[in-house]
Amino acid sequence: MKIDGKQMPSIWVENDGASVGIIDQTQLPHRFAAVRLATLEDTAQAIKTMQVRGAPLIGAAAAYGVWLALRADASDEALERACAGLFATRPTAINLKWALDEMLAAVRNRPRVERAEAALRRANEIAAEDVTINQAIGRHGLKIIEGVAAGKKGERVNLLTHCNAGWLATVDWGTATAPIYMAHDKGIPLHVFVDETRPRNQGASLTAWELGHHGVPHTVIADNTGGHLMQHGLVDMVIVGADRVTAQGDVCNKIGTYLKALAAHDNEVPFYVALPSPTIDFTVTDGLAEIPIEQREDDEVTTIKGRTKEGRLETVQLVPDGSPVANYAFDVTPARLITGLITERGVIAANRAALAQAFPERVEVRPKSNRKVS
Amino acid sequence: MKIDGKQMPSIWVENDGASVGIIDQTQLPHRFAAVRLATLEDTAQAIKTMQVRGAPLIGAAAAYGVWLALRADASDEALERACAGLFATRPTAINLKWALDEMLAAVRNRPRVERAEAALRRANEIAAEDVTINQAIGRHGLKIIEGVAAGKKGERVNLLTHCNAGWLATVDWGTATAPIYMAHDKGIPLHVFVDETRPRNQGASLTAWELGHHGVPHTVIADNTGGHLMQHGLVDMVIVGADRVTAQGDVCNKIGTYLKALAAHDNEVPFYVALPSPTIDFTVTDGLAEIPIEQREDDEVTTIKGRTKEGRLETVQLVPDGSPVANYAFDVTPARLITGLITERGVIAANRAALAQAFPERVEVRPKSNRKVS
Repeated sequence: MKIDGKQMPSIWVENDGASVGIIDQTQLPHRFAAVRLATLEDTAQAIKTMQVRGAPLIGAAAAYGVWLALRADASDEALERACAGLFATRPTAINLKWALDEMLAAVRNRPRVERAEAALRRANEIAAEDVTINQAIGRHGLKIIEGVAAGKKGERVNLLTHCNAGWLATVDWGTATAPIYMAHDKGIPLHVFVDETRPRNQGASLTAWELGHHGVPHTVIADNTGGHLMQHGLVDMVIVGADRVTAQGDVCNKIGTYLKALAAHDNEVPFYVALPSPTIDFTVTDGLAEIPIEQREDDEVTTIKGRTKEGRLETVQLVPDGSPVANYAFDVTPARLITGLITERGVIAANRAALAQAFPERVEVRPKSNRKVS
Repeated sequence: MKIDGKQMPSIWVENDGASVGIIDQTQLPHRFAAVRLATLEDTAQAIKTMQVRGAPLIGAAAAYGVWLALRADASDEALERACAGLFATRPTAINLKWALDEMLAAVRNRPRVERAEAALRRANEIAAEDVTINQAIGRHGLKIIEGVAAGKKGERVNLLTHCNAGWLATVDWGTATAPIYMAHDKGIPLHVFVDETRPRNQGASLTAWELGHHGVPHTVIADNTGGHLMQHGLVDMVIVGADRVTAQGDVCNKIGTYLKALAAHDNEVPFYVALPSPTIDFTVTDGLAEIPIEQREDDEVTTIKGRTKEGRLETVQLVPDGSPVANYAFDVTPARLITGLITERGVIAANRAALAQAFPERVEVRPKSNRKVS
């Protein structure tokens, strides 16, 4: 999407043909800085420190990371080491595993001399597929926004989003934001409430920055505020992204998504989740019971980074010395609270049958068992 | 309660007999600084800037503010100006109005020469009554915690609280924290999840600081986290304070309370609200329709204050330049989501009949009308 009027993706192959460019998202919204990744280690570090984040972008970055690894060493051992190392960077994002499996399949059976080139080709395809998928998500979500807009007779449509499922979380367009950008570009009057999204504040730092640069009207709110807005009819629909969706439509996403889904349900506000199908994990059914929730570093809760009046980026401590903190990164929103899943194949009900029907080739064929269910 | 082992209230008359001492809560948890209020203007400013905050403490501070005003000028005009000025400092807290009405009643019909003394006497009574009330709340809430503890057979009781309804929000003991302090002092093993409570972070700044100084085990979490904890059985009960409670038991409290109440309801976690009865406003029934929600300054959302590594208090900007923000300070939790109201007269169901029965002398006698209800 646009930065200062210039079209830009969130990840690209540098002109040297030997490295990858990313936007250092830990510096946003205060500084725009591009970073060059030249090695597997650079890439793993960029994912781990969240210079790149967002499930689809993590997948694309990991794919390029395999390429960078194979440029240095195309052996089987190096390939396995690269995939294992990249997989360990973030335990929750299913796209990461998907992208690494794709890369493995693309290079494993090739002679060593061809591997790096094949890896780059497949990584480029993964990046391009992400853009295509998000555009399809955008078109399907646009129809929903158009429907809401029709009911509002010219009044602006108020959306609410949580965290950043924007173009910065993908290669371009974003997932939750693709319908928003398309509706805005089409001239539908709309406005987005952006949860600041502690810890890490990706809403205030990234989504607000994205929307502002693209010219989409928006308002940043504390994470506590969405319920109040919905009680007072100030939100027409919620649209969020997903880090992982189960076979029955439970959605694992940034911590706090569940609370917004509860508020939407309580106030009959439609609650949509936008996701590329690689995010669906058909091997998992009950999201609450089966998805391990990543606990991240304490300092994401104890401190926050911002810009001083003098323009310095400064990290400040928020909690008293000696107060322990907990930092769960994600929660699971049960399918019963979800109005629809916006995928590249259309808007799908959040249940097993609808998901299986939309993605028949992905459904897990479980081994038959004659064990009795206890 | 205790600071560094020393017992202390949150507001006191200074030894000069001519001014009032408070703790500057805007410097917590990083610095402990007492501030002397010598005039009406000092007091109004301290309430407005939230050096003192929390409904009961605001009431006590306003009462002392009337005293300080009358020390300077005991005329009817000065009295009215003082009450009007103090009332305008914070629109939502009902205790503020209650305390000012009490002060008016205590001094209005007295000769001018007696007014300052009568005002000090009534302000001291209001402060002392608050402590007595909170101790009673503590005893009633303690029984609930003891009940939960009995069910846990020695395992620690996990509570969750939002914002600061602690002793810093009152004159002493706190409302939501009074049962916690009493249970802890009695040796019941317990642990408190403390929502950081953006904007203003009163949970991380004040509640965690209080609990830490008193030795109560606790963990600070982002506001987004409570739902996840409840889904996984990590919270046994929620206990929060209130800024205003309606005749039918709707609770107006710090923004985000409603979201936690929804999560508690969805996971069958008991949700209690602790409040002194002056917080109940029998003139208001439907909290959602009737309570105006204060919108505070943008900078509470755009910025945050914390301590740098070097120990400086620094305010940093969190949102992109040019991104608008909204800052609703409170929300309303409908009575249907509340397990019980812990008051100085016992634990009361959140409905009109139970509240009227517990506080018959407070129930509004509405003027009879022969107008038809349309």
